[in-house]
Amino acid sequence: MKNKICNMLGIEFPLVAFSHCRDVVAAVSKAGGMGVFGGVNCTPETLEEELSWIDDHVGGKPYGLDIIVPNKVEGRGEPFDEEAMLARIPAEHIAFTEELMKRHGVDAGDLDPVRREHVVGSQNLIGDNADAILEVAFRHPIKLIANALGIPPQVMLELGQKHDVPVAALVGTREHAMSQVAAGVDIIIAVGGEAGGHTGDVATMVLIPEVCNALTEIGEETPVLAAGGIATGAQMAAAMAMGAAGVWCGSVWLTTVEAETNPIVKEKMLLATSRDTVRARSRTGKPSRQLRSPWTDAWEAESAPTPLPMPLQSLVSEPPLRTIDKLSQGDNQGAKDLATYWVGQGVGLMNEQMTAGQVVQEFKEDFLAAYERLAANLEE
Amino acid sequence: MKNKICNMLGIEFPLVAFSHCRDVVAAVSKAGGMGVFGGVNCTPETLEEELSWIDDHVGGKPYGLDIIVPNKVEGRGEPFDEEAMLARIPAEHIAFTEELMKRHGVDAGDLDPVRREHVVGSQNLIGDNADAILEVAFRHPIKLIANALGIPPQVMLELGQKHDVPVAALVGTREHAMSQVAAGVDIIIAVGGEAGGHTGDVATMVLIPEVCNALTEIGEETPVLAAGGIATGAQMAAAMAMGAAGVWCGSVWLTTVEAETNPIVKEKMLLATSRDTVRARSRTGKPSRQLRSPWTDAWEAESAPTPLPMPLQSLVSEPPLRTIDKLSQGDNQGAKDLATYWVGQGVGLMNEQMTAGQVVQEFKEDFLAAYERLAANLEE
Repeated sequence: MKNKICNMLGIEFPLVAFSHCRDVVAAVSKAGGMGVFGGVNCTPETLEEELSWIDDHVGGKPYGLDIIVPNKVEGRGEPFDEEAMLARIPAEHIAFTEELMKRHGVDAGDLDPVRREHVVGSQNLIGDNADAILEVAFRHPIKLIANALGIPPQVMLELGQKHDVPVAALVGTREHAMSQVAAGVDIIIAVGGEAGGHTGDVATMVLIPEVCNALTEIGEETPVLAAGGIATGAQMAAAMAMGAAGVWCGSVWLTTVEAETNPIVKEKMLLATSRDTVRARSRTGKPSRQLRSPWTDAWEAESAPTPLPMPLQSLVSEPPLRTIDKLSQGDNQGAKDLATYWVGQGVGLMNEQMTAGQVVQEFKEDFLAAYERLAANLEE
Repeated sequence: MKNKICNMLGIEFPLVAFSHCRDVVAAVSKAGGMGVFGGVNCTPETLEEELSWIDDHVGGKPYGLDIIVPNKVEGRGEPFDEEAMLARIPAEHIAFTEELMKRHGVDAGDLDPVRREHVVGSQNLIGDNADAILEVAFRHPIKLIANALGIPPQVMLELGQKHDVPVAALVGTREHAMSQVAAGVDIIIAVGGEAGGHTGDVATMVLIPEVCNALTEIGEETPVLAAGGIATGAQMAAAMAMGAAGVWCGSVWLTTVEAETNPIVKEKMLLATSRDTVRARSRTGKPSRQLRSPWTDAWEAESAPTPLPMPLQSLVSEPPLRTIDKLSQGDNQGAKDLATYWVGQGVGLMNEQMTAGQVVQEFKEDFLAAYERLAANLEE
């Protein structure tokens, strides 16, 4: 396939795969798409390790990196104070999660050390550390860098230009797409509300033409990658008929053989329909779409505490969810029930475990079938 | 264009237009699509009048009828008691709407007579009246009958078969599509959560392939009309690439020249983006998507009363909203602000007032452009 995004990224099939799993990244790039490593939880050291591994396993094919440098984070600019950050978490929120686990027979033990570890991790989002991460990133032959939340910092845009690496940004509204283009972003990733993870509430079917039309109106040719609910080649064809240059998929890789997804959650995802997700602020403080479980149900109840702003809510939810994840892989039924992870409504179309390479191959075949199906309507 | 749904409905372009405005119905059918008259608010007498008008103005082209016979309605089966129905409305709900109008400087006067009129109207949904409406419907040369909520009553299916009129049903989930097909429905209208009016929360981009795949799996060839957010030919091409046989659009006709939409609301819709809608239970008791206004915002507030079940919530909301509609067309700024109507996220793509015939023409051109755009990706 040949189009603007294929040329820009040096790939043959405009399927871009966001994954926290380096194996998926390498496999998708080798299969003709582009893997993008989700490095949000990395320190400069672990990022160096991950990208080096990818360099060694991607067979010279192009790959990318996704990080988050949000504009608004609690504590930004203040000197880092672990105790002060922990002190900001209301006792009510801690008690709520403890009570929830207890009700499901999950003995989480002392979560305090995990919480402290997580506080340190949350520093990745802030100041100097972000610079160090960018420094590592551009030491590697990445062919795309994406900022998952808000307008990329000026330094990212400059480094992209200097290294001839396109800078992409995720948006959930037409207005944000316009701001990103004005800021100098090279690729717009338009994410519909049915996506997994952080998401707005405009659906992909509307957002894609809305963003594409708005770009056309101002004479911009910035390519758009469509995201949100896309797990098949037919949906990819649909998005491209509406003007997208390609697609950005995250959820579909979570059930692949390579994915490091908790096997219990993987199994739930393979069985889930599109109705088994919920978009809620309870995991990170901003609305993000997750697999529905008694954990998300409890947070949706009227009696639940109001989620805290970023990154405080993650300090409430991640330590117990990490423990639940571990216990769910043993014989703790309550933990199995509670276990959840971010996933989009496309989970309803993910019904079979495949390798990442097979997923790419299926996308290609399904794309072609969709094109032919559409063409058949026009034959006399 | 030729495909299964075109053959089934006797049309040349599989764009089906749901509208409460008979002028739109006739115009779309004459332009090569199919107009479907929304008859939910009709008595047998007014339905007779509307369908006769369409017969006289549609130039022999096929058209359809959409009605609602829900499975669960408060008061069904009980002898009709106007006073008892009114007595079920909590004073809190009435006070809330009165206070809301007052705050916006809207003097609604005495809404009691309007409310009584509406109670009588709500009887359309029940028993004998539904039979009388079906009797009127099949006296006319309708070529499609749709049931907007739940599985069509057996009598509708039987009359459809007897008169060789396909029976369609609206669904918002894969599971409901399966039940509808099992019940003997001829056409599935799969409505994504971005649609105006009553809607589920699975997005069109996911729902269409999910429903189409499920039908294929059980060996059913029931055609699917895609609905939800669709206001352009490019989106129609997208839906058909994913397996839909055509599309069902409602919102896009609301801003046409012919539409009887309140001009104030029409103007708001032409200016709205996809973010200016809200899906809420506050209008009818079931989740329905509407244009956002201070009215819907007030009902979304935590302090708002919990919406009542159908049809009680309509008795709370329709009388004031009808009054607001009237006053908004004078010089009452508060009423202009509060005015709202059902519309989908596709409102963000409706930026220019056109005739219904022009909309059909635009769809055709945009469909072809989308097809060619998709094809261009495959050229070497």
